[in-house]
Amino acid sequence: MNVKIQWLRNKMLSLNLQGIIISNPLNVKYLTNINAEGTLLLTEKENIYITDGRYVEDVHKTLTLFDEIIVYDLKNVSKEDYENFFIHCNNVGFEENYVTYADYKEILRKYKIHNLIETEYIIEKQRMIKDEEEIRNIQKACEITDNCFSYILTYIKPGMTEKQIANEIEDYYKNRAEGVSFETIVASGENTSKPHAIPSERKIKEKDIITIDMGCKVNGYCSDMTRTIFIGEPTEEEKNIYDLVLKNQNKITNELKDGASTRQLTISVENDFKLNGHCLIHSLGHGVGMEIHEPPYINYKNDALLKENMIITNEPGIYIPGKFGVRIEDTIQITKFGCISLTKSEKNYIII
Amino acid sequence: MNVKIQWLRNKMLSLNLQGIIISNPLNVKYLTNINAEGTLLLTEKENIYITDGRYVEDVHKTLTLFDEIIVYDLKNVSKEDYENFFIHCNNVGFEENYVTYADYKEILRKYKIHNLIETEYIIEKQRMIKDEEEIRNIQKACEITDNCFSYILTYIKPGMTEKQIANEIEDYYKNRAEGVSFETIVASGENTSKPHAIPSERKIKEKDIITIDMGCKVNGYCSDMTRTIFIGEPTEEEKNIYDLVLKNQNKITNELKDGASTRQLTISVENDFKLNGHCLIHSLGHGVGMEIHEPPYINYKNDALLKENMIITNEPGIYIPGKFGVRIEDTIQITKFGCISLTKSEKNYIII
Repeated sequence: MNVKIQWLRNKMLSLNLQGIIISNPLNVKYLTNINAEGTLLLTEKENIYITDGRYVEDVHKTLTLFDEIIVYDLKNVSKEDYENFFIHCNNVGFEENYVTYADYKEILRKYKIHNLIETEYIIEKQRMIKDEEEIRNIQKACEITDNCFSYILTYIKPGMTEKQIANEIEDYYKNRAEGVSFETIVASGENTSKPHAIPSERKIKEKDIITIDMGCKVNGYCSDMTRTIFIGEPTEEEKNIYDLVLKNQNKITNELKDGASTRQLTISVENDFKLNGHCLIHSLGHGVGMEIHEPPYINYKNDALLKENMIITNEPGIYIPGKFGVRIEDTIQITKFGCISLTKSEKNYIII
Repeated sequence: MNVKIQWLRNKMLSLNLQGIIISNPLNVKYLTNINAEGTLLLTEKENIYITDGRYVEDVHKTLTLFDEIIVYDLKNVSKEDYENFFIHCNNVGFEENYVTYADYKEILRKYKIHNLIETEYIIEKQRMIKDEEEIRNIQKACEITDNCFSYILTYIKPGMTEKQIANEIEDYYKNRAEGVSFETIVASGENTSKPHAIPSERKIKEKDIITIDMGCKVNGYCSDMTRTIFIGEPTEEEKNIYDLVLKNQNKITNELKDGASTRQLTISVENDFKLNGHCLIHSLGHGVGMEIHEPPYINYKNDALLKENMIITNEPGIYIPGKFGVRIEDTIQITKFGCISLTKSEKNYIII
């Protein structure tokens, strides 16, 4: 049987689950490689994937005999089939963080399950630790991102709009990767004070500060990097903020390793920002993998310990409303005794 | 007060709801124009929007005094605040089709609400009927799509890959609209037998059949159109299938009007396909608006009546596994006594 499904079956055993319903398509993809809309059921004896006419042909092509997954077309599954899938199961797990309240009621009605059990991100938690192939894909996506950033530094000229620069980045990614991992952010001048700015028709001017937040996908895996750059010499105020952000980003990179506390890391940046009269208004970082934002979340609310082969971002930022902002972000692999920055672009002042 | 919120308050009155929690960001945008992550609460006396530090600045810019919405930064909302929001409310509505089961439990815990009431797509149902401004946006998106299709017919040449053509369409949209409303489908040859094919490196050849499913966004509103075209003269088999699909697409267009039944429309196509030895393996159509797929869904499962100023697609298709497929789709506005096709590209054989 497929090794990831075997892992899940062992996990179910330890949780006293006789069945499980996987609804989140990314989790289905992680377990089976199936890229479609449908539901994966692990019943006592069988692995079943229910999809519809649009996907049946493709799903059959994706699966091998080794996967041991039976594929059903939705329209051939009867009321009795649904009631029989989990008939001998006492406890059946479901994804309470993906399934809507309405779907939850529908599952209860349709499958006639005795005990529907919350599984608390059972697959997402496993997805936090990347295997070799996953790391290779993210490394590749980071490498393309570094190359794209080098290229875009030669492309940016005063007079161009933010949109034009964002489009150029996206075209670069389209030709070398599976496209972007999220909508590229290019914010200039006062727009940099918004962490989630949308590229606008604002034209780049002399003396501008520009924040670029960018990433692409390789084999379904994401990269994520932010750099803040300058058109001409930065002002003293810009330099002070930049230095403070970079100092903290470097400090965190030095502290990242197996066993580091997400809360303590965040608090150390918050404290240093506060000492200097500023605030950290967003998370310090997040996991990166099949999703651009996924567990673990690095913020003061989440008191977790990092583990070897987690891949996360380290992205402190300071935003002065109506004036400007600075964010510096890398995608980073946690190792036993430290970390490896997978994005490697320059972080000292970049002046065009 | 903002007219859409006033509408919702009247609706709440008729449903005996003293409060409501709107979690779906598209529904928040529809009601308030706010484009952010957060939650809209209508309490007995106040309209409240809770967001986080990333969006506060932008939300304040979007709202006017006329909206009468109080904005809170998440980090300043205390346990007591949450418990007080709905303290005098007997029944509070929530979006059971958007909120996850885990969020549902969190809402119960946090707000200490007596009766949390399912609201059955209360906002989505209103969103089905488009107002003048919404129709104008969709018309514009359809016009750009027609123009893009005309252009792409001059661009396609044998030797190009599906991906290359899809990228050209997406670049066209980026420069004239807010980009695509969904991932463009360009499928050629045997790939056309998959309704949801992803553009590949397959090169266009002489005698190919090509399906292009495309759409863009204008002011947040979508267009959706599919055409199946030919490189050189189609085969007799291709012509037969094409004629059958087009005959049904035209027949449905003639039957679309206020009061038409979504189930009957679907069954009439299914029956004609079956008579000819084929099946309709997906829905006949779907609503189009802020989302590319939204209610009403036009299939045999949904027994609803169309209404004036709904905007839907009409997209019959036939797919012969491993060989080829044909789909023809327009975005259509329902009127009192008929309908208006908002996408107007040629539907007779298009031969390049």
